[in-house]
This record gives sequence, structure tokens and C-alpha cells, in this order.
Amino acid sequence: MKLAVVGAGAVGSSVVELAGEYGHTVTALADSRSAAVDADGIDPAAVLEHKRTEGVVGAEDKTAALEAEYDVLVEVTPTTLGDAEPGFGHVQTALERDRNVVLANKGPVAERYGELQDLAAASDGEIRFEATVGGAIPILSTITDFDAKHITAVRGVLNGTANFILSRMAAEGLGYEHVLAEAQDLGVAEADPSFDVEGTDAALKCVIIANVLAEGEREYTLDDATVEGIHELPASALELAKADDRTIRLIGEVSSETVRVSPRLVPADSALAVTGTRNIVQLETTHAGRLNISGRGAGGPETASAIFADIGRLGSR
Amino acid sequence: MKLAVVGAGAVGSSVVELAGEYGHTVTALADSRSAAVDADGIDPAAVLEHKRTEGVVGAEDKTAALEAEYDVLVEVTPTTLGDAEPGFGHVQTALERDRNVVLANKGPVAERYGELQDLAAASDGEIRFEATVGGAIPILSTITDFDAKHITAVRGVLNGTANFILSRMAAEGLGYEHVLAEAQDLGVAEADPSFDVEGTDAALKCVIIANVLAEGEREYTLDDATVEGIHELPASALELAKADDRTIRLIGEVSSETVRVSPRLVPADSALAVTGTRNIVQLETTHAGRLNISGRGAGGPETASAIFADIGRLGSR
Repeated sequence: MKLAVVGAGAVGSSVVELAGEYGHTVTALADSRSAAVDADGIDPAAVLEHKRTEGVVGAEDKTAALEAEYDVLVEVTPTTLGDAEPGFGHVQTALERDRNVVLANKGPVAERYGELQDLAAASDGEIRFEATVGGAIPILSTITDFDAKHITAVRGVLNGTANFILSRMAAEGLGYEHVLAEAQDLGVAEADPSFDVEGTDAALKCVIIANVLAEGEREYTLDDATVEGIHELPASALELAKADDRTIRLIGEVSSETVRVSPRLVPADSALAVTGTRNIVQLETTHAGRLNISGRGAGGPETASAIFADIGRLGSR
Repeated sequence: MKLAVVGAGAVGSSVVELAGEYGHTVTALADSRSAAVDADGIDPAAVLEHKRTEGVVGAEDKTAALEAEYDVLVEVTPTTLGDAEPGFGHVQTALERDRNVVLANKGPVAERYGELQDLAAASDGEIRFEATVGGAIPILSTITDFDAKHITAVRGVLNGTANFILSRMAAEGLGYEHVLAEAQDLGVAEADPSFDVEGTDAALKCVIIANVLAEGEREYTLDDATVEGIHELPASALELAKADDRTIRLIGEVSSETVRVSPRLVPADSALAVTGTRNIVQLETTHAGRLNISGRGAGGPETASAIFADIGRLGSR
């Protein structure tokens, strides 16, 4: 497949670096200011080196990437809320050109799901977005395989940064601010951590799961989610939990009634009590009980793996 | 889809009972001595009641099911070793008629994988067998989605009966014979438990995983597996493990060098230390770290769920 990659952060860079190994050719890469385009395939090492030294991936305008020759647009620009631009516009352009789209950008899928599905329905191209939820963990494809009608609830730990902070607070008895600073030093939390610690990131993932479960019968956006973060959680709450063989995790929950993210008490030996940056998802099924899937919920190569899995699924169902 | 179900045990009965809910019609059901056939769809309740009261599902010869009108043959007869008959013959008949085949019967996939793939290649029908490994847990489809080339090892707990016995021995400090009798009373272990406790069942699942990972470059059968069961494990071994915060699990392992089933020490808080009849599989990936998937590894409706997922995947890749 020929891939045009829009977004040159950790995920976009990994997609460009690994595409050859998965048998694909990258014909274009765009960052927020420029693009590198070559119908025969760009040179991944040279383009990423150009980005490192010059600050931009190439000499062309970023719109050149959208107009390039490709089978799949890989949309990995940063998630934005509300109108979900510029990501939504990128997806629209590709679908109107009858190209396939694979996203890691949560914005268009969480905030404008109905419009996205309408555009896909009118296009010969398809849209897939496994990488928007849980990084490497195959959550959406497992829901599809089991059939959304046979999944009654989904819950899990969907933000690695918040989970790292809670794990460290619980294990070391440290306060939130102290552990946050440590996480920022380690690169696990961003300078502005609000998207992760206030629960927004996990909530967007829950909204996407809710949209997949609803199969078009209802549309969810971030406004439908009840969201509470971990940024005001006192260390004493974790100590109380520990004394009762429990711990606290930022749990996202999706059922037919609820889309909710909040700190919850879970048994210390529960599958939900994953540590560090790991994510876990539990699917409750009608005929097969509970299924747990856990793994790395973020990271460049991990998210790229989910993108390549989606590319592999194009053309099926 | 029209389904012909061969095998009327727990799995076959669940497939017949649930088919309508998944939008399918069962046109034939066979047990070892008879068949019920109706091109417009058999009556699930009536046929299963006939089986309960008369001991057979219907008045026709069992070969009538193989000759019936169907899109998918669901092969759920008991697993047999060596020539894997009569299961293999059922699959062959269906593929030669250009029909699809979905199996829960491990024999043909573990013992005659190459022949099976050759038959499928010569047929307009496809063959799928997610239900042969780990019941409801989507192991094989996850390997396919990640691409076998990007999986370096698979390990896990693949037999619920053995795991139930080990969990109970560890938790209660009881001996093997005592817990086995309890498991037999509960219906968790069969009257002749050798297939489960000697490791054969887990080994067949590992052989199937090895065949999927090898992508035809090498063929595995049970003879290629190193197998050690739990039937000679003394309670003292579990006590020693416990004193060191470990426990013992019957672990199946598949890598490019090894197909092996044996009792192994694992940390008590390890993901591999699932309790009761649950199964877990760990996939080691090249770019996405470790993925854990756990759930119910056996049972009629659970295995039927995997069969319906396979039916849903027919026509894709």
C-alpha cells in the first residue's frame, strides 16, 4: 500500500520508519508546516533527519501531502476537540478522493463520528481507527469480532500517564504533585498534563468505544461523558485504599447508560490494577463472560503497530 | 449464513441454540449416529429435545448433514489424534464442495495442518479455527492482525481443567488426587482427565499456534511438542513456590525454537497466575511489547462465540 502520513510526531515517525517492514511505501509525510512527497517513496531516514536538523520534514507545502498519490491516509496529527480540525479536514479530503483513512487522532472519531461515517459511506474509501483507543491493544477489532450487539459493557484503564502517577503514589506513598513532577522528568507526563490527568484523554477513548458499540443508533461526543480526573486526589485516599487491600485507578466505563471516567476503588489483585503506563480493557460479553486485554496503551511503535493492523484489515468487513 | 453443525456436544448445542441470534440458519445438525436436516432451518429446541429424550438428534444418517445445503460446515466433533478422523474427513468433504469450514475440533488443525491448508487452497471455501485455541479468547485473530512476522513468542495458560486443579492445590494446600476428585464432582474435569492433566490438550493448542506463526514455512504436529503434565506434581512443590511468593502453572510456550508444555514457576502476582478455569495468553511482539489476553478458555457458549466471530470473518483476508 502507498501511505501518506499526516503528522510527524512520535507516531508518525514510527509509521514512516516501520512501513517498509510491513510491505508498505510512504509517498508523503507532512508536519504542521511542510511536506515531503515522492510518488516512488520518500527516504524515511533522510526525511526524519531533515526534520531533526531543519525543523521541517521537507520543502513542500503541507497540502502537497494530501494531494499526493496514496492508498491510505494515515492521520496522526495531535487530537483537537470541538471541530476536531485540522484532522477532520484531512480525513474529509482523503475520503472525497475515495482513499482509505486510518487514524490515531482521536478528535474526528470522538467529536464528529456521525459526519465521519457519512463521509465514509459516500466514499469508496474506508475509515479505521483502532489506534485511537489503547495504543497497541486491539480493543475495537475485538468488539467488532464479537459483534457490538454481544458486548454489554466495556471498562478499563485507558490513560498510561494517569495510571503511572496513581501507581507511584500508591507504591511510594507520595503526593500527586511530587509524582507528577517525576513523571514529567521521565517524559511520561507532558509539561501541561491536564489532558491526561483531568481524564479528557480517557474520556475521548470511551466516547469512541461508545460510538462503536452504538453502531450508529446514537452518536456520542465528549459532552456525553461524565469526567473526573486524578489531579485533586489526595495521597490519603490511596493509603486508605491500601489498608483495605484496594487501590485507586482512573477507570473509564461504557455501557448503554453511561460514558464515565473517574477514579475508582479496585481490589489490589484485580486485573484492573495494572501498574505503570500499561492499559487494560475488560469487555463484558453476553455469551463468553469477561475478556481482559492489556498491553502498552501509548508510544510511537506501539501505536504504529495498531495502524499497520488497521491497514491490514482494509477491505474486510 | 446457512450452517451445518457436525457434533452435538456442549459446543455444537450452543451453536445451534445461538445461531439465530447471530443471524444464521442451521440447516443440519449431526451427532455420532444421526442427523437432522432441513434446508429451511431445523428447529433448535425440537432437535436438542429429541437428542435428550431419544439419544439421537434425528432420523437421518449422519452423512446427510455433510450432503445438506450449507455455506459453512461447523466441525465440533471431539478432538482425535493421529489421522484426526472423522473430523478431517468432514472438513475435506466440505472444502471439496467449495464450502467454508469453521472448526473447534483441534485434531485436524494440530495433526494435519499442511493437508488442511492444501485442501483450502484448492477450494473456493475457507477454513478458520479460532475456537480451537483458548475458547472465547481471540488469540489466532490477534496474531493475524499483528502479523505473525511481528510475534516473537506466545505463552500462556491454555487448559482450564489443569489450571483449576493447580489453583485449588495452591490455595487450599490439598493434594492432586483430592482436588482432581473435587474437579470431577464439579464437572470441571472429565472421568478420564488424562487429556487435560497430562498436557496433551494444551500441547495441541500450542501446535496450532506454532502452525499459524510459521505461516507454512514449517509444519508442526503433536510429535514436535515437549509435553509434561501436572499429574505427578506433589503438593509440596506448590508449598515451596508459595513460600517464595510464586505459584505453579501449566504453561504452554511457542517460539521459533520451542513448542513446550510444562509446569512452571510464575510470580504469584504475575498475569500468568490466573485462577480457576480461566485461560491467559501473552503475545510478545516486535514493536508493541507484550500483550495479555485472558478470558474463558472453554465452555459451550464461550466456544460458540469464537465460532460466530470466525463466521463473521469469512471473506476477509
